[in-house]
Amino acid sequence: MKQLIFLLLFCGVHLAVFSATPSNVIIIFADDLGYGDLGCYGSPVIRTPNLDRMAAEGLRFTDFYSASEVCTPSRAALLTGRLPIRSGMCGNRRVLFPNSEGGLPAAEITIAEALREKGYATMHIGKWHLGIHAGSRPLDQGFDHSYGLPYSNDMDGRPGLPKGSSGSPTPPQDGWNIALLRDGKVIEQPADQTTLTKRYTGEAVKFIAEKKDGPFFLYMPHTFPHVPMFASPDFKGKSRAGIYGDAVEELDWSVGQVLAALRKEGIAENTLVFFTSDNGPWLIMGDQGGSAGLLKDGKGSTWEGGMRVPGIAWMPGRIKPGVTTQLASTMDLLPTALALADTTTPKDVTLDGTDLAPLLFESKPLPPRPYFYYRGDQLFACRLGEWKAHFQTQTGYGQPKAEPHEPPLLFHLGRDPSEKRNVAAERPEVLAQIQEAVKTHQAGVVPGEPQLK
Amino acid sequence: MKQLIFLLLFCGVHLAVFSATPSNVIIIFADDLGYGDLGCYGSPVIRTPNLDRMAAEGLRFTDFYSASEVCTPSRAALLTGRLPIRSGMCGNRRVLFPNSEGGLPAAEITIAEALREKGYATMHIGKWHLGIHAGSRPLDQGFDHSYGLPYSNDMDGRPGLPKGSSGSPTPPQDGWNIALLRDGKVIEQPADQTTLTKRYTGEAVKFIAEKKDGPFFLYMPHTFPHVPMFASPDFKGKSRAGIYGDAVEELDWSVGQVLAALRKEGIAENTLVFFTSDNGPWLIMGDQGGSAGLLKDGKGSTWEGGMRVPGIAWMPGRIKPGVTTQLASTMDLLPTALALADTTTPKDVTLDGTDLAPLLFESKPLPPRPYFYYRGDQLFACRLGEWKAHFQTQTGYGQPKAEPHEPPLLFHLGRDPSEKRNVAAERPEVLAQIQEAVKTHQAGVVPGEPQLK
Repeated sequence: MKQLIFLLLFCGVHLAVFSATPSNVIIIFADDLGYGDLGCYGSPVIRTPNLDRMAAEGLRFTDFYSASEVCTPSRAALLTGRLPIRSGMCGNRRVLFPNSEGGLPAAEITIAEALREKGYATMHIGKWHLGIHAGSRPLDQGFDHSYGLPYSNDMDGRPGLPKGSSGSPTPPQDGWNIALLRDGKVIEQPADQTTLTKRYTGEAVKFIAEKKDGPFFLYMPHTFPHVPMFASPDFKGKSRAGIYGDAVEELDWSVGQVLAALRKEGIAENTLVFFTSDNGPWLIMGDQGGSAGLLKDGKGSTWEGGMRVPGIAWMPGRIKPGVTTQLASTMDLLPTALALADTTTPKDVTLDGTDLAPLLFESKPLPPRPYFYYRGDQLFACRLGEWKAHFQTQTGYGQPKAEPHEPPLLFHLGRDPSEKRNVAAERPEVLAQIQEAVKTHQAGVVPGEPQLK
Repeated sequence: MKQLIFLLLFCGVHLAVFSATPSNVIIIFADDLGYGDLGCYGSPVIRTPNLDRMAAEGLRFTDFYSASEVCTPSRAALLTGRLPIRSGMCGNRRVLFPNSEGGLPAAEITIAEALREKGYATMHIGKWHLGIHAGSRPLDQGFDHSYGLPYSNDMDGRPGLPKGSSGSPTPPQDGWNIALLRDGKVIEQPADQTTLTKRYTGEAVKFIAEKKDGPFFLYMPHTFPHVPMFASPDFKGKSRAGIYGDAVEELDWSVGQVLAALRKEGIAENTLVFFTSDNGPWLIMGDQGGSAGLLKDGKGSTWEGGMRVPGIAWMPGRIKPGVTTQLASTMDLLPTALALADTTTPKDVTLDGTDLAPLLFESKPLPPRPYFYYRGDQLFACRLGEWKAHFQTQTGYGQPKAEPHEPPLLFHLGRDPSEKRNVAAERPEVLAQIQEAVKTHQAGVVPGEPQLK
């Protein structure tokens, strides 16, 4: 009897301690990685044992979406939990360029800002691409520290760089003058891209070791597999899929190192790790672009291949291993992270994401909700349940203008995940429902000041 | 010390008994299941927890091939270990029809014949499709017992059956007059297709229980997911992917039942189970056809989607869990099964398969070998290492004539698994090597008497 009382007391104390320590959050964000590029998503040519294991131990999403079909808007949405149109982080120029004047508005509240308020140590490691001017930079947006590139690795091409160099299987190592920054200061220029993944990983492992007593938030948006493609000597030439596969296999190694560090420090059970990608594969890059698997098209399009991406949640002992077909998106990560930290965003911020905790920790279905596919500031498509209607389409292969569809195209993503068979004529009532959802949505959208002019 | 000696003696005896009992062999063969139709091969819409578990506990092949892009030749090749052209089981009519006069020649040696010689109990459960005349039927070809359909479930359509019924999401249950046979005798006509998978499974579990003392060979070529699509009430309407998904999910359940029966009887460790499909998905069937994932085209074509199929080997404790990129095919199953039974085929039989034992049980790479893609009796393509050359192509979508290619099309299946980028002009030396391999192969082929006239 005494033993039982002791056990109960011990458990009680243990639970209290457990719930009193807010969970750490790590988001690992690949760049241009396609839906079909990981072993656990069916890639026959790229070996990703670490991500496969992460998926086997965690929850793998079949229907996880980035919030945009290109880079900058997607990143803005992930960090704010809001559609890019609300923050103004979308527009005709598609992404930020080194000469862009805009950036993530200082008024936007990022995951880092919200968690830092609750005492989290915060760090950004990798590509930023949300602005290089005051107010938009990592240290302006809630990160204590930052290590990485200010934007994509194919920007800042050196004068005389031959056209097509970024998509080459052997890009010149000194072809780009991009800087590696630490806390906003240049520490290497041009950055040696061949060792970037390795160095990002080292920084992450160091951060985890230093902040193991928590709580912490690590945002790790990798530079690869965006072109130009580089890999360290340990990985170069090792995959079946050429340099693209090498870069993804090194990324997979990196994920393995991060998870191993969490295990080593004994904090795996108290750290939510989420892995995903900013948009679909850049198909025009040929051998140096990835694969969307059975999904149609890729980066730059609102066909499924442009926006549906791998999504894996991991938190051993908290998340029950499995596969979910629930629809979720990168915009759900902010409310999820904030719920873990027992906080919320200010009431006057309109969020587009939902807290995934009931799904992650209790295997409960999420509330049904439409999903909106934007290309720039234009709404191109909407998904409701298994149905998806396209009001406009534009391929990621350089189609110069969007093609409007009236009536919209309609696909059933369960029976026809590759969007091959338009059934609009047969299901007018579904189209009507979707159009109603769009009307409601559009009535509630206040576009932010455009940043990508 | 005494204990140690006892332990050693016990182990010694145990090993001796173990190696003296030839292993059982089970081949589960799906019909028209595509490369992308299982969870472990990346399907987002079909739940296959049993096959996913089988893959996680066994060896999953990324590059496993059926020996043909259609049904009859593929089955002949699997059971004989030989290209269909050698047995004559290919030709203009593509497959056997109820009015065909041909069939698998009696002189061909099947896995069942070779294993029965070594004392194996042998049983066929499912679709046959290798001939209905004397000499070609299951009991003529080495099976002690047989239970199933003589050919595809869309044959024997009743008079007046509307065109397109077989591809319908709600095919008429009495639309086909196909018979269910036991040991060659009709036991039900028309066969109730809605319960076929369930009944096949029951027969398999019963056979396993009866023959648990072994050795036995069970060949289980399922009727589904070939159209017309049926599923039992337990599965109908349950998947995201419509009736096609329902049928595959019931197939997955069936596999789970078979593996559970092996575990229950305590013979899982002594039974090699191989799961695969006879060809790629029948894409013209729309929602009632499957998906080849990222592979191009499907059934009826020699693009990868027509012939590369799921392949999973399972034998707990003997096969190390993992994923292999080694090229293998259904024609390897005969030499593998025979090696497990400690026997070989007669010397005068030309085999096209290779014993997979070194790969399965010792994780050793297989000897490099070309792979030949036939459509009917014509060689359409050849793979050598990662390279594949197409001499002719014809889609599975009803392209009326083959298109010859001179020079051949050339694809690198590692960097370009979807066969999008022909690099023939850049790699003439690779083409020359492949053409040399084809020359050698063709010099050694003696076509059998055509059976599919």
